[in-house]
Parts: sequence; structure tokens; C-alpha cells
Amino acid sequence: MIDKVTADGPALAGGETGWHVVDDAHAPVLDVADLGVTRGDGIFEGLGVADGEIQALEPHLRRLARSAAMLDLPELDLDVVREACLASARLHEPAPFLLQKLVVTRGVEGGDGTPTAWVRTDVMPDHAHERRDGIAVVALDRGYRHDVAQTSPWLLQGAKTLSYAVNKSVLREAARRGADDVVFVSSDGYALEGPSASLIARFGDRFVTPSTDQGILEGTTQAAVFEALEAWGHETAYELLPMERVRTADALWLASSGRQISPVSSLDGVPVAFDREFSLRLADAMEARRR
Amino acid sequence: MIDKVTADGPALAGGETGWHVVDDAHAPVLDVADLGVTRGDGIFEGLGVADGEIQALEPHLRRLARSAAMLDLPELDLDVVREACLASARLHEPAPFLLQKLVVTRGVEGGDGTPTAWVRTDVMPDHAHERRDGIAVVALDRGYRHDVAQTSPWLLQGAKTLSYAVNKSVLREAARRGADDVVFVSSDGYALEGPSASLIARFGDRFVTPSTDQGILEGTTQAAVFEALEAWGHETAYELLPMERVRTADALWLASSGRQISPVSSLDGVPVAFDREFSLRLADAMEARRR
Repeated sequence: MIDKVTADGPALAGGETGWHVVDDAHAPVLDVADLGVTRGDGIFEGLGVADGEIQALEPHLRRLARSAAMLDLPELDLDVVREACLASARLHEPAPFLLQKLVVTRGVEGGDGTPTAWVRTDVMPDHAHERRDGIAVVALDRGYRHDVAQTSPWLLQGAKTLSYAVNKSVLREAARRGADDVVFVSSDGYALEGPSASLIARFGDRFVTPSTDQGILEGTTQAAVFEALEAWGHETAYELLPMERVRTADALWLASSGRQISPVSSLDGVPVAFDREFSLRLADAMEARRR
Repeated sequence: MIDKVTADGPALAGGETGWHVVDDAHAPVLDVADLGVTRGDGIFEGLGVADGEIQALEPHLRRLARSAAMLDLPELDLDVVREACLASARLHEPAPFLLQKLVVTRGVEGGDGTPTAWVRTDVMPDHAHERRDGIAVVALDRGYRHDVAQTSPWLLQGAKTLSYAVNKSVLREAARRGADDVVFVSSDGYALEGPSASLIARFGDRFVTPSTDQGILEGTTQAAVFEALEAWGHETAYELLPMERVRTADALWLASSGRQISPVSSLDGVPVAFDREFSLRLADAMEARRR
């Protein structure tokens, strides 16, 4: 099932029974006829590795399997994938925080249908300033209605596919507007998610994230944030969140496996307040996760 | 600018001054950190090669340059790209009809920003039966309004990007419905294009294709079809085409560089009439193109 697995430092590339290491992280390993590159036809996960331990590995594997099903990919052997992730983390020289990229493509066009897969582990750039000072965010239209995943499942909304050109394009649009990141808005006005993060809004003692039946990803870090908040006695909820309501929030965050949790300091140029001490405490709790 | 160019049979991979041949078409040449595969962040063209001559090469190159601009890619040296396409066509063993795939990605993440590019030329499967008997097509929601390219250009509608997972997904949905291909419909009811083809509708002596200000591609084959039709004394037009009007057409075709022109034999299970003799004459005119 899994044909190739590569990791950074030494990279990995596998045969039928598993995977093997490729010495050079930038070694040429992919066929130009791989559907992952010719059609963005595949799926991925980004996983945080704290002190050598992969965070939220099982939720990531479950989400990978859901994405595979949405794309009609062959069923993945998650035990093989898990082993590859663990091996890639072990092979990297120790660092406080690493980011793994796990990719599964539909394989080579005209081939036997075996997916191509690999894991690559890299040092994560430092985002301490974001956690302390926040990020400037702009709201951008995603073009789809909030219920499009139900009405038109072939649009693959809610699958984490390799077809992320738009997710990169909106970051360039944000930069043109002097901002760091984006909140997608449905064509009928609901806040959805960032291009690589979940949105969390605080209203008093209540923390809300957009409900995941709107063609958005179930955030693995957002789930861990909610777990921490609940342990601290706060209320959490998954709701339809009109963008106009988001603009009235007491605080906003973007949560992702790489940057963990970043407070929003402005939305469309309007300052957004946040409790720095509380936000840093939340970030510390996220970084402290060892599974 | 062009970092790698590969072609089938022998494949090509380039340095700074151009490109070079790689012997094995399936040789591993791509870095797993290439943004083309990790993010579908790149562009492509598919070009037909008839008796060794590339069809509509200049319109393809112009469209490639437009896609590059929409994705904020570095400006491409089209002379280098043209030479690579011509070389790849020359290197392939002679065949009546070949299909070239020309790909340009944003390059390797964390690299110097140099795009990765290649050309690969393959034998095109025979589509004679489609031209004679037609194809079954279903209409599927694309999820976007027809004017989304104007209101939300960051969604890259109208650019030919590598993020084509949805274009593949809709073909699987079509197969589930017993059909061969798809016509995308805007969320406000306008017919747009196929996942890899332009739509042409006949109303009496008038041939209409959806106007290209709706976030759809300018079809290089559709343009050649219109040129032939005009030479034969027919009227042609680019218009907003409500899907309900498409269902009243006297004939429908999908036009693309690979399959050239295929008549539609049914739309959502309802038979669509077509003049086989006229349609085959049109297909012959398309195949006879030597530039």
C-alpha cells in the first residue's frame, strides 16, 4: 500500500513491506507522472513533534483516513503510516520542536494504483513573537456556501488535499493587504477556518469554533485547546459563526499543528484585544503536549 | 528560470542555461519538498502533437503566462519553454498523435524561488469511439458564482493550476452516475466548462461557448473549432449560458487538446442529438492542424 516514505536528514523510501531511509532529504525521489504533482491528487497531514514526541498522532491518522475515503483512495494501513511517522521523528536530530509532513498521493498515472507516500520532518521556524504579539488577519471569501460539503461532496471541502494553491494564494493576498494570515468566509457570510489553521473565538467565558459540518477540517490542535479550556473550567462549543459575530469576539486565535496557537491582534485592520497572559498560558499548554 | 525539463522516452532535466534529457521517463527527478506536490502550487498545459507538430503552441504559451501571472509566479522565459516543448516532441518516437504535459511549479519550499519545470510527451489513448458515438455527460455544481473570478481573484478561477483534485473527483462522481465526463455549473446556474475541456453548444446555425470572464479557461481547441466553423460560414459567440438553455441545444461538444472534440450523446441521462457526419468533419479539421 505505502510505496515510499521519506524523512528529512536521512529520508525514507519504502518497498512493499514498509519504508526505507534515503540519505539526502532533497534527493530526487518523485516521478513527474505522480498524480500528486500533476493533479494535486492526494492528501496530507502536518504533525508537531515536541521533544521527539508526535502530538495528536492518532487524531491525525484518523483525519488522514477520512481524507483518503473522501478522495476514494485505497484504504491506508495506518499501522504502516504510524511506524513511518515515529521512525522519521526518531531519525531527526533532537530539537525542541519539529514539524512533520505526511503525504499520500494517488500514485503514478498509468501505474498499478499503489499510492505514493512519504514522511518528512523539518525544524519548525520560531513563532514566539506571534504568540506574544499576535497576528494580523484578513477575512477573505472562500466562494462556497457554508453547506457545500453536504450539497456537493465532489468539491472535497473538508478533505485535506494536496490541491492547496488557493490556500497559498490567499496568503499572498493577505500580504498585499499588510496582514499575516486569513480567515475564510463562506459566500453566505459564515466564518470557516484559516488556510492552515482552525479559528477559535472567545465570547466572555465561552470559546467557540465553527462547526465542522461546513466543509472545514476538524482541527487536531483546536481539539486539544478545547480540552485544556474545559479542564480549566471554561465552556466550549461548535457553532455556525456569522463573520459579523466574529467581529464582536473578546479574543480570536488561529490554531494549527505547526504554529500551535496564535492570538489575532487585528482583523481587517481593526485591532482585536487579547489577554496576553492567558494566551501564553494556552500556548504553553499546547507546547507541553507529549502525545 | 526553468530548472528542470523532462520528456518521455528520454526525459529532460535542465540546468540554468536550459534543459537536458533524462533517459528514463519514470526516473525519480522531483524533491518531495517541491511546492508542486506539497501544495499543488504550480500551473500546467496539455498540448496535442499531430505528426510531430505541436498544435496551438503559441496560444498554450500565452495561457501558461497568464496562469503564471495569476499565481504570482516569476515571469517565465517563454522562448525556453517553447524550445523544451519542441525538443520533447522531437525526442519522442514518431506517432500520429501525442499529448505533451508542460508543468511549472513554484519550486522547492525554502529554496531560492526558482520554479521547477518539465515537459513530458506520451502516446494519447485512442478516442475514435468517442468522436463517433459521443460521451455521456453529467452537470455538477462547481460551488462558485459565475462572477467569482471578478469578486474573489484569490480563488484562482481561470488559472490552470496543479490543484486539480476536484477536477479528478468530479470524474469519479460522473462514473458513479454512469457517465464519462462533466459540465461544471456555477452556483447561480450558468454552464461553465468541463474539468479538462471547453463546452460548445449549437443552436441552429449558431455555436456558443460560455464567456471566459466566468473564471473558466480560454480553450485553445475551442478557439480552433470556432475558427473552422467561421470559415465554413457559421456564426459563433461567447455568452453567458444558463444550464437550462444548454439543455435545449441542438448539439453539444467538449473540446480539449487531448481528445480534440467529442460530441455529447447524453446530458444527465437525457439523450442529446448530434449530426455524426458534421461532428466527424469537425474532428478531422481539428486533427489536421499542424500548428
